[in-house]
Amino acid sequence: MHIGLFDSGVGGLTVLREIRQKFPSSPISYLGDTARLPYGNKAPQTLKQYTQENIAFLDQLHVDVIIIACHSASSVSLNIKHSQKGTPVINVIGPSCEEAIQSTKNKKIGVLATKATTRSQVYPEYIRQQAADIQVHSQEAPLLVPLVEEDYSNTQVAKIILEGYLRPLLDASIDTLILGCTHYPILAQEIQDCCGPNIQLIDPARSVIQSLVERQTAATNDQPKFDIYLTDQSPHFLEHAQKLLNLPDLPPIKALGPLTLKRQ
Amino acid sequence: MHIGLFDSGVGGLTVLREIRQKFPSSPISYLGDTARLPYGNKAPQTLKQYTQENIAFLDQLHVDVIIIACHSASSVSLNIKHSQKGTPVINVIGPSCEEAIQSTKNKKIGVLATKATTRSQVYPEYIRQQAADIQVHSQEAPLLVPLVEEDYSNTQVAKIILEGYLRPLLDASIDTLILGCTHYPILAQEIQDCCGPNIQLIDPARSVIQSLVERQTAATNDQPKFDIYLTDQSPHFLEHAQKLLNLPDLPPIKALGPLTLKRQ
Repeated sequence: MHIGLFDSGVGGLTVLREIRQKFPSSPISYLGDTARLPYGNKAPQTLKQYTQENIAFLDQLHVDVIIIACHSASSVSLNIKHSQKGTPVINVIGPSCEEAIQSTKNKKIGVLATKATTRSQVYPEYIRQQAADIQVHSQEAPLLVPLVEEDYSNTQVAKIILEGYLRPLLDASIDTLILGCTHYPILAQEIQDCCGPNIQLIDPARSVIQSLVERQTAATNDQPKFDIYLTDQSPHFLEHAQKLLNLPDLPPIKALGPLTLKRQ
Repeated sequence: MHIGLFDSGVGGLTVLREIRQKFPSSPISYLGDTARLPYGNKAPQTLKQYTQENIAFLDQLHVDVIIIACHSASSVSLNIKHSQKGTPVINVIGPSCEEAIQSTKNKKIGVLATKATTRSQVYPEYIRQQAADIQVHSQEAPLLVPLVEEDYSNTQVAKIILEGYLRPLLDASIDTLILGCTHYPILAQEIQDCCGPNIQLIDPARSVIQSLVERQTAATNDQPKFDIYLTDQSPHFLEHAQKLLNLPDLPPIKALGPLTLKRQ
């Protein structure tokens, strides 16, 4: 099963890490749209178009399944189940919601997410459809992606900002917290420290694996292929990938070159 | 004189504010490339292409002068003196350097800038050419643009982050500090508080005005025209413009629609 996935930047690498652990013999193609990073504060119409373009790009690589490894992009693309070529498309919203619904005991779920994801209301709507008696408390956390991208994990600044974002969720007595952005698992320890041990964190990277397992096809004997494509030749992407995710065996990055402005 | 200017987002509005004060009867066209914001962590090749595209867009509007109101874009485009149509192009690097060289008494100038600008070495090289005996101390400050974009000015977090960035410059005994990004004048008070009263801040928006004054042509009797174009329909752009810059009379935003991914 050749797995294609994309994110705006390094966040999707948390999904990539899980995939490589669970599917060590699967070819993988990763697209980081670093030239247009970050996605979390872009308008829905813009994100829809970026998502469609990224799916079309991965489709050209003849992948067997495409993962939208970005919550902001997923939040505006829940209706996309297949690419134009018919390749199955998996988003990171549904699997996290299913796992959170299983996890919560007091029926109070918190969601930490980007502006774009929070304003889309995708989490409350999805969970309400599955379990109408569950309360969902959403908190937008726009500075967490820059903090991760700039390697400010485990600093006093990250702690202060996290405390500010998490306070309303803790006051609402949530017992389950969805990390609603693929960057956030990189801050998982700091978030758990701030929440205390009684709150269950839902890591979207782990949630999405179950969807993949269900779709798993017979393994081929091909040599596992692992490609990374970036739309910007971002030097810190490689540093991040190696440092944050302990991925020393990254393949050479294939830079697509910058994007061209084209009026609609 | 119809003035065109562009930035990745709200930062260029600090230049716009100065222009409107100094040239109240000039038509203005502002392009915010919000769909590809931020510029400060993009690769040089990417920024060069974005700059050329933005200049070409403003050229189509028949402006008389084009200001690159973004330091990251300016840092890779110092050689661009005219557009393809022959319109003069002004960057924000040169004017700040000239003013800083005039200002410094102990010949130690600090520069606070994005990663892209800092790594381009454009400030040390420019100043060395003009005055070889001046020391230039550069500090990259990648979190300041997200802090401004997310309205974290005047917070404890901004103070801690600024203190971290400014400490090496203060230790180097600078007496003049170039705000090397058009977002930073929004944090000018916090930066001045952290530096103390003896360090002169150089605001790029004010520096660039002198270049414009020198190019000023006879005023026309046309009704002043004021257009804002955005490549992403970013709702917080308008909020920022009105709140941060006290610009209640903003014209309706003209959204260009999202960009199309096109392989080189």
